[in-house]
Amino acid sequence: MLARSLQQIRRSSRLSLQLRAYASSPDRSASFAKLSEQDLPSLASIFSSPDTSLLTTLGDKPTATNDDLEPFNVDWMGKYKGHSSIIVKPKTTQEVSKVLQWCNDRNVAVVPQGGNTGLVGGSVPLHDEVVLSLSSMNSIRHFDPLSGYVSVDSGIVLENLDNYLAQQGHIVPLDLGAKGSCQIGGNVATNAGGLRMLRYGSLHGNVLGLEVVLPDGRVINGMKGLKKDNTGIDLKQLFIGSEGVLGVITGVTLATPVRPSATNVAVFALPDYESVQTAFSSARRDLGEILSAFEFFDAASYKLVRSHGHAAERKTFEDGEDAPFFCLVETSGSNKDHDDEKLGAFLEQLMESGIVNDGVLAQDETQIGQLWSLREGIPEAAGKAGRVYKYDLSLPVEKMYSLVPELRQKLAEKGLLAAESEGGNGDGPVKTVFGFGHLGDGNLHINIVADAYRKEVEQVVEPYIYELVAKYNGSISAEHGLGLMKAPYVAYSQDAPSLDLMRTLKKTLDPKGILNPYKCVTAE
Amino acid sequence: MLARSLQQIRRSSRLSLQLRAYASSPDRSASFAKLSEQDLPSLASIFSSPDTSLLTTLGDKPTATNDDLEPFNVDWMGKYKGHSSIIVKPKTTQEVSKVLQWCNDRNVAVVPQGGNTGLVGGSVPLHDEVVLSLSSMNSIRHFDPLSGYVSVDSGIVLENLDNYLAQQGHIVPLDLGAKGSCQIGGNVATNAGGLRMLRYGSLHGNVLGLEVVLPDGRVINGMKGLKKDNTGIDLKQLFIGSEGVLGVITGVTLATPVRPSATNVAVFALPDYESVQTAFSSARRDLGEILSAFEFFDAASYKLVRSHGHAAERKTFEDGEDAPFFCLVETSGSNKDHDDEKLGAFLEQLMESGIVNDGVLAQDETQIGQLWSLREGIPEAAGKAGRVYKYDLSLPVEKMYSLVPELRQKLAEKGLLAAESEGGNGDGPVKTVFGFGHLGDGNLHINIVADAYRKEVEQVVEPYIYELVAKYNGSISAEHGLGLMKAPYVAYSQDAPSLDLMRTLKKTLDPKGILNPYKCVTAE
Repeated sequence: MLARSLQQIRRSSRLSLQLRAYASSPDRSASFAKLSEQDLPSLASIFSSPDTSLLTTLGDKPTATNDDLEPFNVDWMGKYKGHSSIIVKPKTTQEVSKVLQWCNDRNVAVVPQGGNTGLVGGSVPLHDEVVLSLSSMNSIRHFDPLSGYVSVDSGIVLENLDNYLAQQGHIVPLDLGAKGSCQIGGNVATNAGGLRMLRYGSLHGNVLGLEVVLPDGRVINGMKGLKKDNTGIDLKQLFIGSEGVLGVITGVTLATPVRPSATNVAVFALPDYESVQTAFSSARRDLGEILSAFEFFDAASYKLVRSHGHAAERKTFEDGEDAPFFCLVETSGSNKDHDDEKLGAFLEQLMESGIVNDGVLAQDETQIGQLWSLREGIPEAAGKAGRVYKYDLSLPVEKMYSLVPELRQKLAEKGLLAAESEGGNGDGPVKTVFGFGHLGDGNLHINIVADAYRKEVEQVVEPYIYELVAKYNGSISAEHGLGLMKAPYVAYSQDAPSLDLMRTLKKTLDPKGILNPYKCVTAE
Repeated sequence: MLARSLQQIRRSSRLSLQLRAYASSPDRSASFAKLSEQDLPSLASIFSSPDTSLLTTLGDKPTATNDDLEPFNVDWMGKYKGHSSIIVKPKTTQEVSKVLQWCNDRNVAVVPQGGNTGLVGGSVPLHDEVVLSLSSMNSIRHFDPLSGYVSVDSGIVLENLDNYLAQQGHIVPLDLGAKGSCQIGGNVATNAGGLRMLRYGSLHGNVLGLEVVLPDGRVINGMKGLKKDNTGIDLKQLFIGSEGVLGVITGVTLATPVRPSATNVAVFALPDYESVQTAFSSARRDLGEILSAFEFFDAASYKLVRSHGHAAERKTFEDGEDAPFFCLVETSGSNKDHDDEKLGAFLEQLMESGIVNDGVLAQDETQIGQLWSLREGIPEAAGKAGRVYKYDLSLPVEKMYSLVPELRQKLAEKGLLAAESEGGNGDGPVKTVFGFGHLGDGNLHINIVADAYRKEVEQVVEPYIYELVAKYNGSISAEHGLGLMKAPYVAYSQDAPSLDLMRTLKKTLDPKGILNPYKCVTAE
């Protein structure tokens, strides 16, 4: 019994630690109605198959247990937990429309949910909001092989869509770590960035059409597969990246490029951040149209991967293991010989001019995977080293890395940086501060690894890092969005008139504020 | 005297013909104030140099003549003519803000104007609106060579910007026939498409930031040069393509690609429209990342260019002069040898498989220009052949060309098609109906050449062509916008809930409706 209770104590203390991030979350708004058993028959009547479309723990004869509802109530990190007792899974746009109309009429708050893979608490309820899951809407509606335009239900999983397109010789112009779970509708709603953005650009350019249900149930049908259509305000753009606070995306038409037939990857070591910038500039010029990724990571990141990651067992370089910076460059094209020649010439020129200390070029698919793991393995390695504070920032490339030494210095000044860390001067709790990210998109991931989540670390970092971002005219959220986590900090990235206009738009499209409340943009 | 008066009669009858298109234009709204001499001192006090910033014909001591104001009142085709007596040319965003606040406070209607090169009457006043010209704001604010991001005043002429970027080894991801006059702010406000869109995508992807002044004078400062910035509703998207009815764009940040160092052009003849589609499909696959244009034109277009254009003197093909279809393909890349090899293999494969009858490949810059003139010379050649009805449509590629024979048949049925025209059966006024355009973007330009503008032709074509577009789920305006000309027909391209939402947005951002009234989207 004692062991058990200790375990319970440990669990609850861990939970309170995890909950810390949203301890000051907004209270439930009294303007929203509370649903009870009496409301269920009317709600159920919306669905052609209520047995599979309505999950609820309410009433004497609940159709689901709390365990059934947990995947909808809790985000995948287990960091955010809501308390919804009603999950609806409509099968058609018409049903989505009726659900929203029903909720709007009754002042019922709703959280639209895709694959629930977000990192900022935007896709789970905070209190008792109804969860509107798009997962039962996952059909491919149409693919036009000539133009490469594909129209799909918004609930299709990204990887399933990419697999389908691969059979057609095409590719989704978007790739994410969460591709096995995330849904295209959620990707569009959060304007997901990811790994292919340098090459194919943002969803604002690649989304050709959206079908959206407004909070009052009206359906905006903009699914035409047209690249050019200048007939009034481009409504779909309003919903791309607005995190489900203005409408629910039920259909997406995407322009999909032809799948590249050749891919190359190289990783190289560089003597300083100026060289990283020069190498990037040369890559844009010399690799031009075949450049598909330009990632970077610092010595501290590489040390982590070598200590804790898959790459632990082997050296990568003959003569560059101790370099302060590393870059990964990927090319994708339609002709392997041409791409090899371009990449070879590029690397040779970098070596000759001394911009690069040492480098390796993948010889086959396996080596491509191994080189990518040096970059992609960083977050996992960090997790093994301790508790990680993660910041996803957008900054002008030239100023991008300076945040890392500035942050180190700040932590050192306060005596929080352990001696083992770069610039460390004492026995502080912070083991390492490191930076890596999508250099080509100006997207820096800055991570801090500490022995535990500590208030004194957070207090030094959190106003300070947002202030630095504001000083450099950056963004406090490059690709993750605001959700619940960053909504209170948005003023570090947006000025007052912009925020005012966002609030006005929210109020105009969702006067009762029922859609994804408390997050991203609210009317007040 | 007689001669003179006859001339006047002729002039006025021509004028009424030209005015026909907007004969049913909306009357002046009584809600707008009329300005008089008394208002001028207060307006003038806004500007640091009123002598060059305020042109007016009002009062006893006017600062301008009607001739001075004509370039602002009349569009470049001479088709639309307004009656403004006040032109303002602010030099700073602050002055734009004060002008709009001043007008909004007094219910004064305003037309924002860039290079005034639009084709749908969107950039000139209809009645006595104040013209707000951005032409005095034309500085390059900042260029970052590393990322290729450039920030400029919105009044910079597109070609000037491209020339500046060429010196930096970069290129504007946008190219238009009007580049010598059009301004980047107008391009963004109308979401201009043009010739480089197949390669670089739309402005919704390439515009990284906008500075916009709202109708009440509030300034939305969104000029950060960030590729990734997910911090709330992406406000800039609202203004791209909304034709100046929601706000006035004063600054633009653009992502600019590295300028390609190699360009190739080929033109080939094809036996049918199926082959055109197959060739396009092959080009996307085989030319992949270097494909920068895929244009097409039909036999009637080629005949026109051969009869009236610069290409009149010479044959293009040994064995393809009488083909029903022609395609122009352009590649742009970073390595001439590689591009030559790819294009050569592509053309060889097309010839071998019989998809192409005959083709020519430019050997130098001069020949590149000559081949482009076969496609670009079509509108000019049409103008020499007679009066031209022009339609700029967006359609799914597979259905794109069918409108041309359908329209010919319709005109033939009504006995309007002259015997000389393809499918012609009588002595009707229509000399030819032809189609050409940006196949890669699904953008068809369909033109009708008649001996004169005739009501009976227009009546057969105009509801009919919009109905066909609606049937094929196309757009009545691919790249020209709605302006004054197409605003009444928008329902052929947008459904009622979409139009309703557009009107709501207009009402929300511009409650008094002062910005670019009567055009694109209005509150009622």
